[in-house]
Amino acid sequence: MSASRSTGRVVALCGGVGGAKLAYGLQHILGSDLTLVVNTGDDFDHLGLRISPDIDTVLYTLSGLANRELGWGRQDESWNFMQALAALGGETWFQLGDRDLAIHVERTRRLQTGETLSAITASIAARLGIQARVLPMSDHPVRTVVATSEGVLPFQRYFVERRCAPVVNKISFDGAAKARACSQVLSALHDPDLRAIIICPSNPYLSVDPILSVPGMRLAIENAAVPVVAVSPIIGGKAVKGPTDKIMAELGVPATSRAIAEHYGELIHGLIVDHADEEDRKTTRCTVHAAASLMKTDEDRIRLAGVALDFAGNLATDIAVAARRRGR
Amino acid sequence: MSASRSTGRVVALCGGVGGAKLAYGLQHILGSDLTLVVNTGDDFDHLGLRISPDIDTVLYTLSGLANRELGWGRQDESWNFMQALAALGGETWFQLGDRDLAIHVERTRRLQTGETLSAITASIAARLGIQARVLPMSDHPVRTVVATSEGVLPFQRYFVERRCAPVVNKISFDGAAKARACSQVLSALHDPDLRAIIICPSNPYLSVDPILSVPGMRLAIENAAVPVVAVSPIIGGKAVKGPTDKIMAELGVPATSRAIAEHYGELIHGLIVDHADEEDRKTTRCTVHAAASLMKTDEDRIRLAGVALDFAGNLATDIAVAARRRGR
Repeated sequence: MSASRSTGRVVALCGGVGGAKLAYGLQHILGSDLTLVVNTGDDFDHLGLRISPDIDTVLYTLSGLANRELGWGRQDESWNFMQALAALGGETWFQLGDRDLAIHVERTRRLQTGETLSAITASIAARLGIQARVLPMSDHPVRTVVATSEGVLPFQRYFVERRCAPVVNKISFDGAAKARACSQVLSALHDPDLRAIIICPSNPYLSVDPILSVPGMRLAIENAAVPVVAVSPIIGGKAVKGPTDKIMAELGVPATSRAIAEHYGELIHGLIVDHADEEDRKTTRCTVHAAASLMKTDEDRIRLAGVALDFAGNLATDIAVAARRRGR
Repeated sequence: MSASRSTGRVVALCGGVGGAKLAYGLQHILGSDLTLVVNTGDDFDHLGLRISPDIDTVLYTLSGLANRELGWGRQDESWNFMQALAALGGETWFQLGDRDLAIHVERTRRLQTGETLSAITASIAARLGIQARVLPMSDHPVRTVVATSEGVLPFQRYFVERRCAPVVNKISFDGAAKARACSQVLSALHDPDLRAIIICPSNPYLSVDPILSVPGMRLAIENAAVPVVAVSPIIGGKAVKGPTDKIMAELGVPATSRAIAEHYGELIHGLIVDHADEEDRKTTRCTVHAAASLMKTDEDRIRLAGVALDFAGNLATDIAVAARRRGR
């Protein structure tokens, strides 16, 4: 492995909102040198349309179209479709804005013609002027399923309809065993110019684990022989957004950045925690870097992305030194 | 056949805009005693959605939701979906408003679950508070195809994309031979309480002929043994709306109400023409009744519907007298 470098390509694993914010910062620094591998475990068919919530959040965030007030969907949105659908007796538990509908209709139509999700995503990303490469983790269906106190629920039923209220016992990924990673994902991980892999501050259980559940993904990350840096989604014992802390408690894991590091285990070389969690540094096995990790503004996103890339660069040097010491 | 009666059920054959206006008037007078048999030859699949333009125009017109300025779609419409779709590179030649989208998405979803078009239409009509029974002519696909100077075009490509510019040589109805009339349509035509059949002032070639092309439809109308009254869509040699006059010229038929009567031939007992076309009365074989047939306001619609029902009532007496004279 080469020593710390400030050029080369980066792969980032990413779920929805929190992850997409860091992806925005990474794209700002890296442009087309960034490849995002996005969770599709949340994808589902609704109203006859294929919805890919995390891909859409990433596309909207990277193109500056995301709705910052809602935290999902598109900015300047209107809701006339949904209102009319309610009047016709249609299902309304999953809100789809009028502008947002376009991506679902277009994706569904193109999937029906036999195009792959990765090809469709690439073409839409290009249309939206996105520089980074946005890839679904797989072109095959992998569906996150949550075993809860109220029975087994498909992800969106748990997440949106039941608003994460049921207690989580187990999370699994239907179809994962038969899925294959998107070929461009594997090429990106094998790229000799790869300099780092970043795990964005997405929910490890619901957003990153589905990506890692795709056969060969974990191995390809390990074999990439570059620093793997995760950014903790926990700040001061709380998830910035979403149910990460609640789920950790329900799974019997303390809602700490240390537990996040333990969850990723050998896969990561370093973890970025918030200054609020600097205490975790002492008891965490991997290298920990503390930073201001809350991303409220675009500047926060870019700054934290820079911190993650610098940290990975430094880890590369450490790893290279350690490898030399071990005589490799 | 009973003599003139002002109670009993009525079946009306109906296409889009012009036909739907009379249907509105008929519903005002007849309420649930009206059954509308609507053209589905214009139906097509677009953006992965099943669009049924005439059924939608009828549903929107009867429920007071129609856009009177545009002459199609819904009132108070917004176009954010279409704008977003254009930005993604989607097809935009067929405009779909945000509110209007709801009916296409809901219909498509329910068709995919195996529901019939007639069941879906009935349920949506009930939701919209429509009293009349709105029925597709068939639950089987019948698709109007136009042989033109620019080749054979599916109906919406000719009508919307090419704005009826190509010269029409021939109109045919793909799938008609294998289609069956909706069973409720046949029941309505066999209903002993039926008192009249009205052919609304829709385009005879593009909107009514597809209905008549469904096997058994023409015979069921003839066997109903009630007055069949058509309302001419031609006023003073011009179509009120749409390409009827242009198509008639291209097919070598003069754009007159008399030619409309000849087109329907033995099927109709009477034709309502506008006062502007009273001259046609002299040369037309069936009984002709002249009235103010332009429908600008709701009052116009109700008035003309009343004229059509009265005319049918009088024809019933005439037909009964004639039948007695023939010793039937």
